[in-house]
Amino acid sequence: MDKIPEDPKVLRQMIREGKLDRPTSGLALGFSQANLVILPKDVAFDFMLLCQRNPKPCPLLEVIEPGNFEPQKYGKGADIRTDISKYRIYKGGELSDEVGNVTGVWSNEFVSFLIGCSFTFESALIKADIPLRHWDQNKNVSMYITNREVVPAGKFHGKLVVSMRPIHKDHLVKTIQITSRFPDMHGAPIHIGSPIEMGIEDLNDTDYGDPVEVLEGEVPVFWACGVTPQAVALSSKPSMMITHSPGHMFITDIKDETLEVK
Amino acid sequence: MDKIPEDPKVLRQMIREGKLDRPTSGLALGFSQANLVILPKDVAFDFMLLCQRNPKPCPLLEVIEPGNFEPQKYGKGADIRTDISKYRIYKGGELSDEVGNVTGVWSNEFVSFLIGCSFTFESALIKADIPLRHWDQNKNVSMYITNREVVPAGKFHGKLVVSMRPIHKDHLVKTIQITSRFPDMHGAPIHIGSPIEMGIEDLNDTDYGDPVEVLEGEVPVFWACGVTPQAVALSSKPSMMITHSPGHMFITDIKDETLEVK
Repeated sequence: MDKIPEDPKVLRQMIREGKLDRPTSGLALGFSQANLVILPKDVAFDFMLLCQRNPKPCPLLEVIEPGNFEPQKYGKGADIRTDISKYRIYKGGELSDEVGNVTGVWSNEFVSFLIGCSFTFESALIKADIPLRHWDQNKNVSMYITNREVVPAGKFHGKLVVSMRPIHKDHLVKTIQITSRFPDMHGAPIHIGSPIEMGIEDLNDTDYGDPVEVLEGEVPVFWACGVTPQAVALSSKPSMMITHSPGHMFITDIKDETLEVK
Repeated sequence: MDKIPEDPKVLRQMIREGKLDRPTSGLALGFSQANLVILPKDVAFDFMLLCQRNPKPCPLLEVIEPGNFEPQKYGKGADIRTDISKYRIYKGGELSDEVGNVTGVWSNEFVSFLIGCSFTFESALIKADIPLRHWDQNKNVSMYITNREVVPAGKFHGKLVVSMRPIHKDHLVKTIQITSRFPDMHGAPIHIGSPIEMGIEDLNDTDYGDPVEVLEGEVPVFWACGVTPQAVALSSKPSMMITHSPGHMFITDIKDETLEVK
């Protein structure tokens, strides 16, 4: 198989032409990837407010104005309608379709939101020799719906979703330090050690992603998760909502390092 | 004269009852103060986008939903219509009135924005024994309209406004370190040393505030300024816009220290 290019612009062009449709984890290493949420204009203000009030689960990287489809900061020249390899279309809160581009359903009423993704801080942890079990086992990170309410905004309200990574006690301080440096990518953990306090009774019973074992000497560490804004938005059953498909992120032109300081 | 209380809630109550109408600089020391912008709902999305795209001049602390007037995070129990001692009302971009409360002109269409203010990092500088000339001379900080465009958002576009403080070369590193810790209060400087590069020909010719001298051994240090969002919004001539009057800020319940980390 040919080597996959590492330039985000080249990768997005390949995705646009349908030449690359695998999940984006591990692609364009060193460049940040982003979650996508597209909503009609009439609920865009409330959604932006939700993100402003809940910056840990919903770190807003860029908002693309109604009808526009080119990011100005995170991917100049990109087309948000075609440059992700797999999209999900929801109607009235129900999954309606999974498609390779959304040009056919595009409307001038759509506002696009790019939201930070934890790939960035995971790369930083790996670089610091802090192992991540779901990477080692080639699984999806474990995710759980908690008993904590997000700060509501307009019509949007719901529960916080968290991701969990088992971290060895010896790596705990360093893990907090490293992830704290990426406030736009979910930042520092929101809880350490006690799943039950967040209403999670059994770590094996994930709501999204795959379960992984927490070994002797490790503690479960929880981060606010980018699934939160999607889950909250869906529960309000918007007439139309488009997201990336899980794992098929938007590859940005912004290097992880440049996001280290605000 | 009676001692002025230091509890933000008590101070806001006094302001609400018309018993305190002086500028708020030096009041409730240790608690953050905020700029206020109120705009009709139809331009609120664009204004919020302006803030999201320009976080250094427009650090958004809290957005209060259409028609509501109680901050949930920065001043539970406060009334944004009455708890500032002096408001400015602009119609079509022109100053129309300066009043002690805005209850009479309030509309359910109004969205209120609380925006970070540099008082917080100034207190931190003073505590670190870094003198501020405008404090020593009891003046307003020097402010200038630059030649730099803000990142536009919808109908909003215009020039960045900066504040300038002369800092001794020996204090420069510490000044950058300290102010960097307050990203929600304009954060690190955006330029050091050369006014002309930002289109400022004469430091004595301020656009807002008072000029101060830059002495031997000092360099002019420039921060993005909270006047920017007001100036940019006004230049688009919204039908209605309400702000605090200069120096008459909203006193929040949030301690400066809690804003030190994101």
